[in-house]
Amino acid sequence: MTVKVGVNGFGTIGRRVALAVTLQKDMRLVGVVKRTPDYSALYAQSKGINLYTPTLKDAEAFDKRGIKVAGTLEDLLNKVDVVVDSTPEGQGAKNKQSYDEAGVRQVFQGGEKPDVAEASFSTLCNYESVKGASSLRVVSCNTTGLLRLICSLNKEFGVKSVRAVLVRRGADPKEVKKGPIDAIVLNPPSLPSHHAIDVKTVLPWLDIKTAAVAVPTTFMHLHHVTLKLSRNATRGEVLEVLSQSPRIMLVSSSDTGIKSTAQLVDAARMVRMRYDIPELVVFEESVAVDGNEVMLFQAVHQESIVVPENIDAVRAVTQSQLGLEETVKITDSSLGLNKRLW
Amino acid sequence: MTVKVGVNGFGTIGRRVALAVTLQKDMRLVGVVKRTPDYSALYAQSKGINLYTPTLKDAEAFDKRGIKVAGTLEDLLNKVDVVVDSTPEGQGAKNKQSYDEAGVRQVFQGGEKPDVAEASFSTLCNYESVKGASSLRVVSCNTTGLLRLICSLNKEFGVKSVRAVLVRRGADPKEVKKGPIDAIVLNPPSLPSHHAIDVKTVLPWLDIKTAAVAVPTTFMHLHHVTLKLSRNATRGEVLEVLSQSPRIMLVSSSDTGIKSTAQLVDAARMVRMRYDIPELVVFEESVAVDGNEVMLFQAVHQESIVVPENIDAVRAVTQSQLGLEETVKITDSSLGLNKRLW
Repeated sequence: MTVKVGVNGFGTIGRRVALAVTLQKDMRLVGVVKRTPDYSALYAQSKGINLYTPTLKDAEAFDKRGIKVAGTLEDLLNKVDVVVDSTPEGQGAKNKQSYDEAGVRQVFQGGEKPDVAEASFSTLCNYESVKGASSLRVVSCNTTGLLRLICSLNKEFGVKSVRAVLVRRGADPKEVKKGPIDAIVLNPPSLPSHHAIDVKTVLPWLDIKTAAVAVPTTFMHLHHVTLKLSRNATRGEVLEVLSQSPRIMLVSSSDTGIKSTAQLVDAARMVRMRYDIPELVVFEESVAVDGNEVMLFQAVHQESIVVPENIDAVRAVTQSQLGLEETVKITDSSLGLNKRLW
Repeated sequence: MTVKVGVNGFGTIGRRVALAVTLQKDMRLVGVVKRTPDYSALYAQSKGINLYTPTLKDAEAFDKRGIKVAGTLEDLLNKVDVVVDSTPEGQGAKNKQSYDEAGVRQVFQGGEKPDVAEASFSTLCNYESVKGASSLRVVSCNTTGLLRLICSLNKEFGVKSVRAVLVRRGADPKEVKKGPIDAIVLNPPSLPSHHAIDVKTVLPWLDIKTAAVAVPTTFMHLHHVTLKLSRNATRGEVLEVLSQSPRIMLVSSSDTGIKSTAQLVDAARMVRMRYDIPELVVFEESVAVDGNEVMLFQAVHQESIVVPENIDAVRAVTQSQLGLEETVKITDSSLGLNKRLW
């Protein structure tokens, strides 16, 4: 069965999810919804992607620029099995009623509150248990990064507690109106940051506390994570588990000279379109293990890390016959996720 | 005849020129010289590019990491017709003696002083007249951008004078030790900046003055240029010439929503590897014409704009049978230069 997918919103996440859908054999991209006829719309048109607008009125601006519009959001909803909502933060909740009325299954992003969907979702943590939900919320980029690490280690060692400090990129490269330009912003000043709470939407039993700052960079987030395992482990064991876990890439600074998000992005530019790094990158030399305590640095490419999870979420809400291992394998090979950059 | 090319230096420019050489039917990339076995070396190896080191001793660090080295710079020089020097600023002059001793033709970058080569070079300005020189210096990224504009307009209207203010990116994305992080740096405080002097190495007759500042961004340079033509022109005429000129891309802000280097790069990320924009980008709405005075904004992608000129320079120093129009056509179609991003 081919699942018909519509993507509402064609920004940072939406455009990547839409392209990812076109690479799945069990899915078909029916179209994307876009409000403004900017360069992303021109790009979509050049790729032969059908463009829809939120309302008929929005189509006028597209017409003026000679960009063909296939219909409205409502038209699109009547043609799809699943809608992936990648509209700006908070807008998804407002769209939900239309989705419900159209009777389509729904995938939301982490910018929405958890109650927007039946469950919050992260493939390696709860793909099997949420399968069949009619709506899912893919947790945010930072939470996705934390959950990939936690669930990979939990499966092997058990994880009792997590403490993490998140150094967040201030804005995406294209966001010219967002800052900070020169500050380290306590984000927020009171603990915990929402990331701990968001992790708990998927792992309610976990003892986790997070703190976050925002800094003047656009490339990636960087986390320092401290985990307490349920048993003692050696550094070798931990590295072995990380090297075997899907969607995690170990990068050795001494082998590659990569010691910053900037160099990681520079390396990705040579081999990846849009320098996307949907893998969670763990810096190999930063991994320190002392008894049951694990500490490490990990980098999160905020623009692309949730894309594989969105694809898996589409499968989960449509009760795909693919199990966890299969969806991960198919998603990752179609999107080019790898254990190294080349 | 196939020209055998070696590239000394595999940094921002070297890696792009090396890949560009592999795309030319009349050239063969024999190898590249690299001093340190970092991620760029791993990338070169993954692409099957032969790696050479400056000295035998430098090869040890490569051996330790299991990266195969084909020989030294001297070995490479014995196998090539032309060396493209893309080593750090000022290093090219030091390398010149080895190149002379090996009897190879030479292409240097704009970081070197003009006397490093027989002539300074910019395709649209002096390809035919420097043909057959045994060494050429491709002028810097900013100068290349200025010269493309000036020579395109000069051909049609004549250009009497140029005044330009250059807002330079502070560092390349990968340069984590370079600034400024928070300053507008007068670069230099005394006029003119070296760009005017550099333009005159190619167009000695031109009345040109430039001023430059460096700002905290990594993506692109932005110039505001004022030209006095030899005759009055209309805005339509100027736009027509720019739209027909090779290596210049007009971008309409009102059609695309692109009003910054960040958005230009964001658009390029969707369709270009490494988000390279070797075209000079002129912002269409910024073009203002009053009598014989033309003013406009143009953006220069510092990492890639000189790559086409390097390829043409290889042809010029080897007395290629290709004329100006042919080399431009072949270079640009092989590298994917275009009149629009999609």
